[in-house]
Amino acid sequence: MPDPATNNRFTIGLDADDTLWDNQEMFEAGEALLRELLLPWADGQTTNEALLHDQRQTLGIYGYGVKSFVLSMIATAIEISESQISHADLQKLIDCGKDILTAPVALLTGVPETVVQLAETYNLLLITKGDLHHQNRKIVQSGLLPLLVGAEVVDEKSPATYQEILDRYGIDPARFVMVGNSMRSDIEPVLAIGAQAIHIPYHLTWHLEHGSNHGSVRSSPPHHELAHFVDLPATLATLCTLSG
Amino acid sequence: MPDPATNNRFTIGLDADDTLWDNQEMFEAGEALLRELLLPWADGQTTNEALLHDQRQTLGIYGYGVKSFVLSMIATAIEISESQISHADLQKLIDCGKDILTAPVALLTGVPETVVQLAETYNLLLITKGDLHHQNRKIVQSGLLPLLVGAEVVDEKSPATYQEILDRYGIDPARFVMVGNSMRSDIEPVLAIGAQAIHIPYHLTWHLEHGSNHGSVRSSPPHHELAHFVDLPATLATLCTLSG
Repeated sequence: MPDPATNNRFTIGLDADDTLWDNQEMFEAGEALLRELLLPWADGQTTNEALLHDQRQTLGIYGYGVKSFVLSMIATAIEISESQISHADLQKLIDCGKDILTAPVALLTGVPETVVQLAETYNLLLITKGDLHHQNRKIVQSGLLPLLVGAEVVDEKSPATYQEILDRYGIDPARFVMVGNSMRSDIEPVLAIGAQAIHIPYHLTWHLEHGSNHGSVRSSPPHHELAHFVDLPATLATLCTLSG
Repeated sequence: MPDPATNNRFTIGLDADDTLWDNQEMFEAGEALLRELLLPWADGQTTNEALLHDQRQTLGIYGYGVKSFVLSMIATAIEISESQISHADLQKLIDCGKDILTAPVALLTGVPETVVQLAETYNLLLITKGDLHHQNRKIVQSGLLPLLVGAEVVDEKSPATYQEILDRYGIDPARFVMVGNSMRSDIEPVLAIGAQAIHIPYHLTWHLEHGSNHGSVRSSPPHHELAHFVDLPATLATLCTLSG
């Protein structure tokens, strides 16, 4: 693999969940199951809000990931049903989590061939946040590992996290472009350390990924926006020529 | 911080859970709670075996850590009680997990002063396995970070994992000594890559840490065994002089 510290290539940071492969869809299917199971006691919006409330309360304790999601669903089910939910239904929530954790990785349209193409010109560095065990399994199963200079699983995507990774790899922020679907995790913290970022929205966004965590979006330097992952090579060619 | 790739110091790998700080005791308190809650349906040994069975079944799906433990306790409680366990008791299991995740880090006797002393002579590299979010919290809260050249949270402590870390830091296995309480995770895989290891047993060992995962213990090169963490400086002084 090329070494970002010594070669002259730009390094492209690639977010994974909902940028390279499907993720949020499975969580939303879990939420739909929870709403259905709790219909005898509450409408869908009430359940959504109760779940989100528990997730906000526990995020600092649990961190991100499927196991956190399942524990929040169980707590929400007990609360909303006032302890009437059946044990069989609670078991369904546990099984839903296992299904997400063992689901085959579904690369998004155009991703495999585009990543192959990008690897010819750039250092590719996957940066994903969440559960170490689950993310590692998905990274290996994606088949993309041989095309990457590294894959980093982090607990939270803050400016400090990105800076630490770039320092460790010996990457100049002026020669780093992050690509991802979350303004809060992939774009804003990267702009904050003086690197560039390309936003590729996914059709679904988790509530806790909405909004800004790192100061005002309005005052941030501009980022780039793309509709499709397959458009990356063309955009990067311009971006990296202008900056390089 | 000194750079292991360029300085001439030995690097000492430090396991964390039950080597630097208490861990297993809290899990065993959780197991005691589960046994107590399930006494109307099963004796303690039956509950222990059912929990261990679920943990073995789910380890590959969940990975290590407190959230996995809680999900296994809930599944075991539903199964053993034949769906009779109260929702309040299930909530107690969830709360038990939160208590472990938020418990203050309790450094073991002699650890703070010994780590300070070791940092004067060696590169210290913390290597722990498990949940990224929880381990990171404990590492920061331990106050040891300024004394370390790095802290690595890994999903599984295999020979390949250790080799990858040593390669990344530019550490020669001949100048690396791992210190930990688990033969399976801290000693055997390290001996397998040609480094040295010092075993400091903890008075409790989780069932899934018993036994060997990496070939026969009998055929492994010898490791060193210490009763107390405070004896490390003297042992390392001899070991590193002989090898250096």
